[in-house]
Amino acid sequence: DFMHALEEVKPAFGVNEEELTSSIQNGIINYSPHIKSVLDEGSLYTEQVRNSEHTPLVSVLLHGPAGAGKTALAAKIGLASGFPFIKLISPESMVGYSEASKVATISKIFEDAYKSPLNVVVVDNIERLVDWVPIGPRFSNSVLQTLMVLMRKQPPKGRRLLILATTTERSVLQQMDILDTFDAQIGVPNVSNANELGLILEQAEIFGPETRSDMGRQRIQRILSAVQDQTRSTDIGVGVKKILLNVETAKQDEALDERFVELMSRAVNDRIV
Amino acid sequence: DFMHALEEVKPAFGVNEEELTSSIQNGIINYSPHIKSVLDEGSLYTEQVRNSEHTPLVSVLLHGPAGAGKTALAAKIGLASGFPFIKLISPESMVGYSEASKVATISKIFEDAYKSPLNVVVVDNIERLVDWVPIGPRFSNSVLQTLMVLMRKQPPKGRRLLILATTTERSVLQQMDILDTFDAQIGVPNVSNANELGLILEQAEIFGPETRSDMGRQRIQRILSAVQDQTRSTDIGVGVKKILLNVETAKQDEALDERFVELMSRAVNDRIV
Amino acid sequence: DFMHALEEVKPAFGVNEEELTSSIQNGIINYSPHIKSVLDEGSLYTEQVRNSEHTPLVSVLLHGPAGAGKTALAAKIGLASGFPFIKLISPESMVGYSEASKVATISKIFEDAYKSPLNVVVVDNIERLVDWVPIGPRFSNSVLQTLMVLMRKQPPKGRRLLILATTTERSVLQQMDILDTFDAQIGVPNVSNANELGLILEQAEIFGPETRSDMGRQRIQRILSAVQDQTRSTDIGVGVKKILLNVETAKQDEALDERFVELMSRAVNDRIV
Amino acid sequence: DFMHALEEVKPAFGVNEEELTSSIQNGIINYSPHIKSVLDEGSLYTEQVRNSEHTPLVSVLLHGPAGAGKTALAAKIGLASGFPFIKLISPESMVGYSEASKVATISKIFEDAYKSPLNVVVVDNIERLVDWVPIGPRFSNSVLQTLMVLMRKQPPKGRRLLILATTTERSVLQQMDILDTFDAQIGVPNVSNANELGLILEQAEIFGPETRSDMGRQRIQRILSAVQDQTRSTDIGVGVKKILLNVETAKQDEALDERFVELMSRAVNDRIV
Amino acid sequence: DFMHALEEVKPAFGVNEEELTSSIQNGIINYSPHIKSVLDEGSLYTEQVRNSEHTPLVSVLLHGPAGAGKTALAAKIGLASGFPFIKLISPESMVGYSEASKVATISKIFEDAYKSPLNVVVVDNIERLVDWVPIGPRFSNSVLQTLMVLMRKQPPKGRRLLILATTTERSVLQQMDILDTFDAQIGVPNVSNANELGLILEQAEIFGPETRSDMGRQRIQRILSAVQDQTRSTDIGVGVKKILLNVETAKQDEALDERFVELMSRAVNDRIV
Amino acid sequence: DFMHALEEVKPAFGVNEEELTSSIQNGIINYSPHIKSVLDEGSLYTEQVRNSEHTPLVSVLLHGPAGAGKTALAAKIGLASGFPFIKLISPESMVGYSEASKVATISKIFEDAYKSPLNVVVVDNIERLVDWVPIGPRFSNSVLQTLMVLMRKQPPKGRRLLILATTTERSVLQQMDILDTFDAQIGVPNVSNANELGLILEQAEIFGPETRSDMGRQRIQRILSAVQDQTRSTDIGVGVKKILLNVETAKQDEALDERFVELMSRAVNDRIV
Ligand SMILES: Nc1ncnc2c1ncn2[C@@H]1O[C@H](COP(=O)(O)OP(=O)(O)OP(=O)(O)O)[C@@H](O)[C@H]1O
Ligand SMILES: Nc1ncnc2c1ncn2[C@@H]1O[C@H](COP(=O)(O)OP(=O)(O)OP(=O)(O)O)[C@@H](O)[C@H]1O
Ligand SMILES: Nc1ncnc2c1ncn2[C@@H]1O[C@H](COP(=O)(O)OP(=O)(O)OP(=O)(O)O)[C@@H](O)[C@H]1O
Ligand SMILES: Nc1ncnc2c1ncn2[C@@H]1O[C@H](COP(=O)(O)OP(=O)(O)OP(=O)(O)O)[C@@H](O)[C@H]1O
Ligand SMILES: Nc1ncnc2c1ncn2[C@@H]1O[C@H](COP(=O)(O)OP(=O)(O)OP(=O)(O)O)[C@@H](O)[C@H]1O
Ligand SMILES: Nc1ncnc2c1ncn2[C@@H]1O[C@H](COP(=O)(O)OP(=O)(O)OP(=O)(O)O)[C@@H](O)[C@H]1O
Ligand SMILES: [Mg+2]
Ligand SMILES: [Mg+2]
Ligand SMILES: [Mg+2]
Ligand SMILES: [Mg+2]
Ligand SMILES: [Mg+2]
Ligand SMILES: [Mg+2]
Repeated sequence: DFMHALEEVKPAFGVNEEELTSSIQNGIINYSPHIKSVLDEGSLYTEQVRNSEHTPLVSVLLHGPAGAGKTALAAKIGLASGFPFIKLISPESMVGYSEASKVATISKIFEDAYKSPLNVVVVDNIERLVDWVPIGPRFSNSVLQTLMVLMRKQPPKGRRLLILATTTERSVLQQMDILDTFDAQIGVPNVSNANELGLILEQAEIFGPETRSDMGRQRIQRILSAVQDQTRSTDIGVGVKKILLNVETAKQDEALDERFVELMSRAVNDRIV
Repeated sequence: DFMHALEEVKPAFGVNEEELTSSIQNGIINYSPHIKSVLDEGSLYTEQVRNSEHTPLVSVLLHGPAGAGKTALAAKIGLASGFPFIKLISPESMVGYSEASKVATISKIFEDAYKSPLNVVVVDNIERLVDWVPIGPRFSNSVLQTLMVLMRKQPPKGRRLLILATTTERSVLQQMDILDTFDAQIGVPNVSNANELGLILEQAEIFGPETRSDMGRQRIQRILSAVQDQTRSTDIGVGVKKILLNVETAKQDEALDERFVELMSRAVNDRIV
Repeated sequence: DFMHALEEVKPAFGVNEEELTSSIQNGIINYSPHIKSVLDEGSLYTEQVRNSEHTPLVSVLLHGPAGAGKTALAAKIGLASGFPFIKLISPESMVGYSEASKVATISKIFEDAYKSPLNVVVVDNIERLVDWVPIGPRFSNSVLQTLMVLMRKQPPKGRRLLILATTTERSVLQQMDILDTFDAQIGVPNVSNANELGLILEQAEIFGPETRSDMGRQRIQRILSAVQDQTRSTDIGVGVKKILLNVETAKQDEALDERFVELMSRAVNDRIV
Repeated sequence: DFMHALEEVKPAFGVNEEELTSSIQNGIINYSPHIKSVLDEGSLYTEQVRNSEHTPLVSVLLHGPAGAGKTALAAKIGLASGFPFIKLISPESMVGYSEASKVATISKIFEDAYKSPLNVVVVDNIERLVDWVPIGPRFSNSVLQTLMVLMRKQPPKGRRLLILATTTERSVLQQMDILDTFDAQIGVPNVSNANELGLILEQAEIFGPETRSDMGRQRIQRILSAVQDQTRSTDIGVGVKKILLNVETAKQDEALDERFVELMSRAVNDRIV
Repeated sequence: DFMHALEEVKPAFGVNEEELTSSIQNGIINYSPHIKSVLDEGSLYTEQVRNSEHTPLVSVLLHGPAGAGKTALAAKIGLASGFPFIKLISPESMVGYSEASKVATISKIFEDAYKSPLNVVVVDNIERLVDWVPIGPRFSNSVLQTLMVLMRKQPPKGRRLLILATTTERSVLQQMDILDTFDAQIGVPNVSNANELGLILEQAEIFGPETRSDMGRQRIQRILSAVQDQTRSTDIGVGVKKILLNVETAKQDEALDERFVELMSRAVNDRIV
Repeated sequence: DFMHALEEVKPAFGVNEEELTSSIQNGIINYSPHIKSVLDEGSLYTEQVRNSEHTPLVSVLLHGPAGAGKTALAAKIGLASGFPFIKLISPESMVGYSEASKVATISKIFEDAYKSPLNVVVVDNIERLVDWVPIGPRFSNSVLQTLMVLMRKQPPKGRRLLILATTTERSVLQQMDILDTFDAQIGVPNVSNANELGLILEQAEIFGPETRSDMGRQRIQRILSAVQDQTRSTDIGVGVKKILLNVETAKQDEALDERFVELMSRAVNDRIV
């Protein structure tokens, strides 16, 4: 049951893991081999921080479209490290802060991260942290500069730090010259085809426990065909987050299957091709 | 009588419902099947928030031209939910506030909304809340960022929240990358043709109680013909709000019918085709 | 005598009417049928506010070229309403105020206007109130947003409000998306031809009491011909305000007629065709 | 002797006339009929303020190239009025003031001007008062708006005010929409030809008292010819201020005539044709 | 062993040398004759500061691509001078500072540097010190101006100062007109070919102590060939810093050689040609 | 010996002359007739301030490429005046000042200059004083406006003031409309040819006392030929400041002549043709 998927990653003790845990509230569904490869690459960098004397700091950027699962995957990698101190820097926790307060809060979190031997900091949604808006364009340069410097600042002797950042605006970050700051970049794609969509519907138990029966699987096949008919395409190109939301909306309707097909087709057609 | 249409939606107890009630001061006239479909879709999302464990937060945007009835419909959906706590965030309630005060007020309202099990927050007139003006263009980025984050922030465990937002500037919101923030979008169109206009005049009792008599209906037909003659078009393309205003202005004139035809024709011609 | 024209509009008691009264210090000269039609339309909206239950707020914009008489006509409509509370919001009364003080002052005036049953607020010279300058362009967005919201904010139950605003920069207001804010718009044109100019010279008694004699009228005719000769046009296209100023300047010169012709011709030629 | 030209304009008593007096420290040389006509037109507006009941406020703009004599002529008109209160608003008196202090100082001067029956305010060098710089462009909008409003604000009953403003940047003022603010505009041109230049050299007594002898006049003729030779032009196009400065520089040199010809030719060639 | 390369440059006593020392934590690998020539030119300017009476201030800019080794080389030159006071100005040490604090801190460091007879100040990463971001573009002009003035300000009599600055954004500095500020400029290039890469792998002991054996050298040759195969190029164009990082990442993988080839090829392909 | 060239200009008593003295620390080498002509023209304006009653204020701008010697020449003219009070306004003395402090400091210096009968103020490096940077472009408008006004403000009766300003950015000053502010402008060119370069090397005693021997002169000739060979040009186009710096750098090298040729050729090639 994917709903319990995250029990396995809770560290023995730690800080802030509740926040991270809630980022994976709908689990990690294994709908494509890509998911495992993202988690594996994450694990490689985790080990580098743990073991290599010469690289006490490694920073990794997870980038991809809205709702692709970036935050959930970053949280999972972070929790899986088992490092004793894990901190989350997210726009949600700094609502209404002034620029100066944001800068101070971010600095404080990094300073705390310099006190334990092994640390993870998840910097979620960079474009929102820096108040990015394409009209203008405008953003908080002081928050941006703080992040740029802190994400490259070597921890003091004997301290190690893994930074996991997420963004939907990779090209904006490129224009900001901040991509160089990262030691590695990992792409997180949308759900791409009907096959993957079917796996999600099955594991999300769209029809409850009966979903995994033959009947359930046939019903799913009919849904997939209907979506393909309505969108005249075999591509999906929608994030797992939106798909799970549509599952829940459809469940409110007596005509669950039809409603899901409608919502899903709308989402597919809305995607920017 | 449409003037009493809103009694039915008053919740047993609650907060701020007066404000919302006054937004529907002229009731909801059922002049087109679209009205019901908007309310039905609103009700679907209300149920999702009430029932689904996986989606404690659903945000919906009502968008459409000025005076189309967006605020009234959002208020009606909100009041119809029967959720115990209902809050309105509107530019009118924050006149003369500094940016920081606006941010604080908005944050406070959301925080309050995290305390009850079931909550509705109506975010009215987003472009005005963010002080949007197309020259420049200028707007308050701090208010915008606050809204962007709060409209996606998951409520704490056990709390649920329905967000109903309105705007006349959907394309501006798109440029601001804020449309992604919404789980669903509902369009609210103008009154489109003479038939709908006739239904409004009848239900708004333009000639008082006698409107609904045969005589009244014929008089309305003559008005509709006259408007069509003067505008050389069968389209109306004017919001219900402006139409009801014109009804009131015309009532001040002894030559009610002629005055209404004049005001209405002017409005039709002013619309941007 | 047009100099006493305004006695008739003083309300029995009230607030601020002195300010408004001084705006009509040179009276309202009835030089064209358009003048009456502007005042009549103003009166229609006044009655709507007084009588209609559904429209406790009506806002009207008077727009036209510099010196066309917008402020005087708005003042006259306001004073003629006989509403007990009349307030004027003008740039002259807020010289040297900070943006915040302006916003506070404007808000206060509207709040006061919510306390009486029947109220008029004249918002004079919007472009100046918002510190508009076309280079940049620059303006005070906080004052603008305050006006936009307050001019649409419904008064509390049982209170009614007529808003009369003036501007020379209608196209700027359009770019600012503020025109939608008004329920109605009334154009105030320049003095357009020699005939209207003649009526003004007569009623303004350019030659003193003898102006209205046959001799006076002939002398006016000669002036009109001379202006036509010098400008090679029968059009005038100058505001009543400038014409009355030129009358006064000419009076300082012994060669009154020639000086007036010269000043008037210069004004006609300066107009933007 | 033009050095004593200004004794005749000192009012019996007054305020600030010292500042104005020092603006004419080199007198007003009568080198062209245009000078008298500027002073005459100034006198006409002075009389209008003194006499006309309907125009208690008249504002006049003197505009022209740098060093043409604008400030000196405005000062002369102001002092010649004999009005008891005369105030000068100049950038030199507000060096290092913040925007707010400038606004306050300017407002205070106008307020003082509302206390006497007859007043003159000279607003010198508007573009400098508003901190204008063409790169950007940048300027103080709050000072600009203050001036725009104050220069049109009617004095209280029984008070009269003549405003004399100067600028070298008339086209900038036009872009700022501030030209409409003035009731009249007077151009102040450069010294245009050798004849005018000769009159200035004579009256400025370039060779001391002997300048006015036949010998002196011949020497001047030779200078004029030499300038014409070196510049290959009969036009001068230089302001009287620069000419008087060159006279003084040349006086330091033993070869006075040659040095003056050199300086003057350089100035003529530097002018923008 | 390059890991101990920096012992030799520690001065007998001093200030801040720890910070500088940690900048060379991976030593200076002698992979190309260019490295020596950079250090030699640095030494020449060090001697000029020490000896010449006429040039108590010399400023040198080290510029080159990200990760080319600029900071390490500047630190090495500074430490090698043996000057008693060595200070580092770096963005990392001023995280979260306001513009004013940055300016104050920088000024203080220079003031301290005026107190000893012989001083080195390393100004690391100028573009980050001035909060440069290409979108806008934006930067702190007050920090920039402070640096521009301080880097040219003559020390007081008897004091000498060597300034070593680094940047990856030389063309930005040129646009800022700050390049003129430097007395000399030294370019620091990327690792350019397989030969240099091989020297680095050997000296960095990629396979531990056995790297320097014949076997080790052959294994390195196979890696170089594989990179050349995968990138279809004999050029490298990657900074020494990234190469050393990739060595460490590869060490976490059992398939060290393959992983290094993969990471290195990705880096080569990512470079901007 | 040019090293003692400045003893002769020290005034009997005064203020700030130390600062000015240190600006000429390497003396004024008489390498071209232009140097004398600049000093002579400076002396003419000094005399005008001293003698002419009508021009108590004269302002002169020295402009030219970086390192051409502007500051040294301004200092020399100022010190040579023998005026009792001499003040220097330079960016170096206001490092880290806020805009307001800069404005206050500059105002104070001018105020002090109004207290003595004869004064010199050197305004060094205007573009740096106003924090000019071409990206944006940005600058401090309040400092700029303060300078513009103060450089034209007449001193009080009986006080005289000579202003000597320097800049490398004459075209920027032109765009800022500040050039009109100056009564005169003097260009300071680069060292233009091998002949001038030779004179400098000789007087700067590049080989110590023996430079002036026949042997020394021949060695210089060989250097000049070598530079001409390497640059394939007879033009130099480098400032005297850079040349003197190169002399000092070369002195650190055993191969003095070769090193100087190399540095000099690089400088010649770097110049913008
Ligand atoms: N394979 C998966 N990868 C990521 N998330 C998954 C996966 N399977 C299920 N989920 C669930 O899908 C949701 C993904 O949402 P998440 O907030 O991580 O997306 P995101 O890309 O960060 O979105 P946004 O662009 O809005 O920040 C989470 O609720 C997560 O539990
Ligand atoms: N079917 C309807 N839908 C919406 N409003 C209706 C309807 N019938 C009558 N009304 C009345 O019309 C008015 C609609 O005004 P409302 O303020 O809701 O429009 P709006 O689109 O929010 O306008 P704005 O663009 O100015 O914000 C209300 O007074 C409402 O009572
Ligand atoms: N028919 C008229 N309409 C308006 N004003 C008139 C009329 N007859 C005479 N006047 C006088 O003309 C003047 C009009 O000036 P007013 O300030 O109202 O013009 P305005 O259009 O508001 O000017 P501005 O564009 O400068 O604000 C007033 O003094 C008024 O008394
Ligand atoms: N006919 C004249 N008109 C004006 N000024 C004259 C005349 N004759 C002599 N002067 C002298 O010439 C000088 C003119 O300078 P003034 O400062 O008035 O020029 P300006 O146009 O205001 O210059 P700026 O553009 O710098 O403000 C004064 O010293 C004045 O005494
Ligand atoms: N020859 C070398 N030159 C420079 N650094 C070297 C050399 N050999 C090994 N190194 C090591 O490589 C690293 C170079 O990193 P450094 O931070 O100096 O690069 P950088 O160009 O300043 O990078 P950035 O552009 O990120 O500021 C250091 O760890 C240094 O010890
Ligand atoms: N003939 C000369 N003219 C000017 N300076 C000379 C001359 N001969 C020698 N020098 C020396 O050359 C140096 C000129 O430097 P200075 O700072 O005056 O140049 P600058 O043009 O002001 O430079 P910058 O553009 O950097 O402000 C001084 O040290 C001065 O002593
Ligand atoms: Mg996310
Ligand atoms: Mg609304
Ligand atoms: Mg008006
Ligand atoms: Mg002037
Ligand atoms: Mg570096
Ligand atoms: Mg200089």
